[in-house]
Amino acid sequence: MASNSVPTKVGILSLGDMGAGIARLLIAHGFPVSTNGQGRSEDTLERARNAGVELLSSDLELVQQCNVIFSVVPPRDAEATAQRIVDASSGGSRKETLYYVDLNAVAPSTCKSIVALFEKARVPVKFIDACILGGPPSLKRPSQEGEESVWDQPSIPISGPHSLASLPDGEKLASVLQLRSISEEIGAASGLKMCFASITKGFTALVTQSFTTAHRLGVVDELKLELNQMVPAMLTRAEKGVPGMPPKAYRWVREMEEISKTFHEEGGWDRTVFEGIAGVYKAVAEDGVLGQEKIGKRKRGTSLDDVATVMAEGLEMKKKKTE
Amino acid sequence: MASNSVPTKVGILSLGDMGAGIARLLIAHGFPVSTNGQGRSEDTLERARNAGVELLSSDLELVQQCNVIFSVVPPRDAEATAQRIVDASSGGSRKETLYYVDLNAVAPSTCKSIVALFEKARVPVKFIDACILGGPPSLKRPSQEGEESVWDQPSIPISGPHSLASLPDGEKLASVLQLRSISEEIGAASGLKMCFASITKGFTALVTQSFTTAHRLGVVDELKLELNQMVPAMLTRAEKGVPGMPPKAYRWVREMEEISKTFHEEGGWDRTVFEGIAGVYKAVAEDGVLGQEKIGKRKRGTSLDDVATVMAEGLEMKKKKTE
Repeated sequence: MASNSVPTKVGILSLGDMGAGIARLLIAHGFPVSTNGQGRSEDTLERARNAGVELLSSDLELVQQCNVIFSVVPPRDAEATAQRIVDASSGGSRKETLYYVDLNAVAPSTCKSIVALFEKARVPVKFIDACILGGPPSLKRPSQEGEESVWDQPSIPISGPHSLASLPDGEKLASVLQLRSISEEIGAASGLKMCFASITKGFTALVTQSFTTAHRLGVVDELKLELNQMVPAMLTRAEKGVPGMPPKAYRWVREMEEISKTFHEEGGWDRTVFEGIAGVYKAVAEDGVLGQEKIGKRKRGTSLDDVATVMAEGLEMKKKKTE
Repeated sequence: MASNSVPTKVGILSLGDMGAGIARLLIAHGFPVSTNGQGRSEDTLERARNAGVELLSSDLELVQQCNVIFSVVPPRDAEATAQRIVDASSGGSRKETLYYVDLNAVAPSTCKSIVALFEKARVPVKFIDACILGGPPSLKRPSQEGEESVWDQPSIPISGPHSLASLPDGEKLASVLQLRSISEEIGAASGLKMCFASITKGFTALVTQSFTTAHRLGVVDELKLELNQMVPAMLTRAEKGVPGMPPKAYRWVREMEEISKTFHEEGGWDRTVFEGIAGVYKAVAEDGVLGQEKIGKRKRGTSLDDVATVMAEGLEMKKKKTE
């Protein structure tokens, strides 16, 4: 097909902050984006409408109309989301090959078991292992005076035998998303995400435990003073990273469990560290008021000190209930 | 007593890298330093002689001759070392009060159980809870043209009801060591050390697991590229901190267990994260060749990449043996 043919229609599951950001970026570059709005919350539907995303009423419609589907869901939903597409693609509802791009934060072995779902059902799907490093795409500067718009974009490494290049406008699609192939192996992109997130989100968990404990011991100011003197970059990172975490803590529980799995299966390590870190995020989400935080509507935990204060209170309350 | 009286004689247990550094700093400022050399390795005796430390032949001699004893030992030896001084001080071998400064990386509750050893034995000891943040004191610039020598020194917060100020030259001694009182409570200084070390040494463990796993997945270069792009300070810290760790890994096992205890007892957290991190350092010390590394005689693991390479090999070997 020529490059001036109808652009590839992209399906995105689902329209969270990250999915909506990717949708906006694609739409701004001429790619129509759809999602299945059935049964979704009013918040999600509004986010879709604001981003200019077409709302379809079933996975079947999504699969029939789109040539590429991006899965961008909380890690615990990655397999169920793939199963939905397997089910919708079964029964010959599609003639053409569908590209399925899994962007989720899951272990290489989870990624491989998703591939196996498609293979077992013998549906015509080309699977791409992908991951997102960084925040949602956001418009930095609108197009002006003939110049193109500028976006802040996350890094999106991909791996596996397939790429989007075989689609008529696949190269443009890959270029807009800045996809970067790092390996022929399914699992490499997922694995990279796990290794990266273990450092950034692992660190945030350590700091959360440390400052909560320091708060109870009355030495938070001393801790900050010493960190600032000896490892100032770590304090800067802690003060920047920890306050952003509370609204995402519930999602990070499963992500940390996937890291635990990766470190064990691929690295040969015990599972303990990241099982523990999953527990830290579970405590943030459940033991105290931080679990009620929403992006854009923040109340508590908007500073490192306040995360420590809230968690110290939450864990004290929990202890009293248990005793 | 006047300030021109005989300077306080300081005992240090034991003369590891940190103990020897503190000894050099004190001796350079006119304080005689002794240690009990009995049964110590030739390496330690040589280190003592090089530092100008007097070698005594028993704990009894140490207790009879010194007014202050600093305990600077691997965390697993903190309680046994205190017990040695309790034993040597019992039976009225001392008339004057002895200051016992515990500088070890232990949990506040461990510190309190050490205090209890002295109280139970009713020996005349004033206990100071202290901790060391940073590396051993080292001479940066010798004294010249009438100016005093300049030292790189660690930070030494202390806590509890006592200070060294009541000794005839206690203020000078405290000033040379840059002791800084942070609280009247025993446990505050130890707790501060735990909270600080959890961030720095916890981070080193996360990076060790991450890079080992990335090495096995073949994505180390990609991981470095993405970290460098998104969180460059974390990569810098990783590349600086990880290679210094192998010779200390065996000691850090107990330190991480003490952090686990602190986070549980003082913070209300589960013990899992730092039990897991203790396991990481146990693996570094035991599963591979990194456990044989000595400070000043380094062979392997002198770069982040090589730590990952050695650990990947070590954990693969262990897996094969287990299977």
